[in-house]
Amino acid sequence: MPSHIDFMARAIQLAKQGLYSTDPNPRVGCVLVKEGNIIGEGYHVRAGEGHAEVNALAQAGSAAQGATAYVTLEPCSHFGRTPPCSDTLIKAGIRTLVCAMQDPNPEVSGRGFEKMRAAGIEIISGVLESEAKKLNPGFIKRMSGGLPYVRVKIASSLDGRTAMASGESQWITGGNARADVQRLRARSSAIISGIDSILADDSSLTVREDELALADAELAKRAIEKQPLRVILDSHGRIRPDHKVVNQSGQTLVCVRHGVQLPNFVESLALNHGESGLNLRELLKALADRQCNEVLVETGSTLAGQFIQQGLVDEVVHYMAPCLMGSEARPVFAMDIETMADKIPVQISDVRHFGNDIRFTYTLQSQNKD
Amino acid sequence: MPSHIDFMARAIQLAKQGLYSTDPNPRVGCVLVKEGNIIGEGYHVRAGEGHAEVNALAQAGSAAQGATAYVTLEPCSHFGRTPPCSDTLIKAGIRTLVCAMQDPNPEVSGRGFEKMRAAGIEIISGVLESEAKKLNPGFIKRMSGGLPYVRVKIASSLDGRTAMASGESQWITGGNARADVQRLRARSSAIISGIDSILADDSSLTVREDELALADAELAKRAIEKQPLRVILDSHGRIRPDHKVVNQSGQTLVCVRHGVQLPNFVESLALNHGESGLNLRELLKALADRQCNEVLVETGSTLAGQFIQQGLVDEVVHYMAPCLMGSEARPVFAMDIETMADKIPVQISDVRHFGNDIRFTYTLQSQNKD
Repeated sequence: MPSHIDFMARAIQLAKQGLYSTDPNPRVGCVLVKEGNIIGEGYHVRAGEGHAEVNALAQAGSAAQGATAYVTLEPCSHFGRTPPCSDTLIKAGIRTLVCAMQDPNPEVSGRGFEKMRAAGIEIISGVLESEAKKLNPGFIKRMSGGLPYVRVKIASSLDGRTAMASGESQWITGGNARADVQRLRARSSAIISGIDSILADDSSLTVREDELALADAELAKRAIEKQPLRVILDSHGRIRPDHKVVNQSGQTLVCVRHGVQLPNFVESLALNHGESGLNLRELLKALADRQCNEVLVETGSTLAGQFIQQGLVDEVVHYMAPCLMGSEARPVFAMDIETMADKIPVQISDVRHFGNDIRFTYTLQSQNKD
Repeated sequence: MPSHIDFMARAIQLAKQGLYSTDPNPRVGCVLVKEGNIIGEGYHVRAGEGHAEVNALAQAGSAAQGATAYVTLEPCSHFGRTPPCSDTLIKAGIRTLVCAMQDPNPEVSGRGFEKMRAAGIEIISGVLESEAKKLNPGFIKRMSGGLPYVRVKIASSLDGRTAMASGESQWITGGNARADVQRLRARSSAIISGIDSILADDSSLTVREDELALADAELAKRAIEKQPLRVILDSHGRIRPDHKVVNQSGQTLVCVRHGVQLPNFVESLALNHGESGLNLRELLKALADRQCNEVLVETGSTLAGQFIQQGLVDEVVHYMAPCLMGSEARPVFAMDIETMADKIPVQISDVRHFGNDIRFTYTLQSQNKD
């Protein structure tokens, strides 16, 4: 007979279907089980629509009476755009609730459990917790700390170079790695880029259906509909109305220094600035206030280095192409570190082949300290 | 019933037991099979002692009559320190010979087969050929082209840095990676290093039993007995008699410019020099003349970059430690490459975890052109 872990694994699998569309809500999956059989499954698709629990209950109907509910996240206990799921589960007659994790918002954490326990429901929590947490790094971080989860994407040669000294560059990674970047964009609430790449390449910073390489057409369609917020760091307001990035579906936000006025063709945000440019922490706080969960930094080595040196980065996704570019070429991260004691330790969480390229994922554990 | 491939795989496994000791001979394994059963096994241990075929025949005794011999390399046809194995196999009454590859020396390639075929023995060649070739990259290259197989070992951060700008450095990789480097040394005929690392660290460049981390104590013992030739590039003859590297078991060779005289405490070799230092191709030819098969380059970024830019490198073994060291730190390879068209493509043949470090092995296919 399948165990709690098996059913929770299925609920996590369901939750992943919402990877590209639940923003600003978390990705959540739910499985309803009675006498060892699944009688209902559901996941959250997009904000304003049914939560995972509600979708699973709709499938189970009256059979939910006496069933066990497996949910990847503590059921909500408050009225949002939809009624609280804890009430709905109680009303449906659920006997046992198995949860992967508590609500990450410290102010409401445990309240859903409390309500359901008071209604006589048995609560088991912490099943596949670390797996469930990986579904929502941004939502969890924003709810618990008021900042988004910051992911830096870079591509380099094996000797750690991104472009020639002259500035000459080109895609050094192959199609599989580029499709993976499209998927990183699609799961992000916002993409941060510098004005330089707009001026140089007229990048559009969009998610494109044909480049996503998703097997599930429905998921791809939702990703295209969502389009992450495009954030351009443009201290001096050099963006123009004819740049591609301001003429795409979805929103664009241009960040300038205080005092710089942009015409009305695009939304702008004035930020404080210091020696090294715009205040990046202030930017991230503003993005969290706009309910951004995961933010993807796609910039050159200078800005990427600043994000890291200012302790603002949670994760780096580093694609390495099978080539050497030499010691005069541009670095991965422009960062001045003087002593070995100051080198930045990282934790490699994943190493994977994408075509001929290798993708490293690493987290910066010492980061994000205030 | 086991196939040709199964028995050859076993012969290759046996050959690997000679990885640290057969120099300057190739690593060779042999399995004798009769009616589907292995009746004798052998491999070459060290030069001057029995070849794989002879060792396997000694185990089989008179049962070898009518047997099939699986050998990872074409049996020799000439008198060296021991009689030709082709004669020995004929005399033993072998009926069929299954071989992985021909002799890589173009002048004798096929002669062993010819002799045995003339004696009425059936010959099957090419079984697991590419696997067998991996046993002896250095022997094959030296025999076919007069140069050793050159392997460059480096360790860097994930952003491609090896030391701080000040020169401050330390082991950035962990114990597992360092043990792997010991095994790379042990399989090499020679290690090339620069005088700078001798002057800075007084390195001994030896293979050390306690650091090899080999499960088989006998193999470790043989590795220690062999000790690769230590080659120091020392244009101006700055080495001193009290440096550790000249006071270890095994041989040391110090390479100086023509005209520089070294006292007699160590063997020296005078080489031509150009703008960038000693002539490295001339050095490699001299090492091949000394029967060096695999050569390990363990130098700083300047010399390593020269080896690569001069097209002399077959393989790079690149350990990446989980840290970032910043853009002011020293590069992996000091190489001036100006355009993307000139970047050096590599072929990644292996990616593997060693503790917290990642080891990349890549080959430089465009290299070694005259």
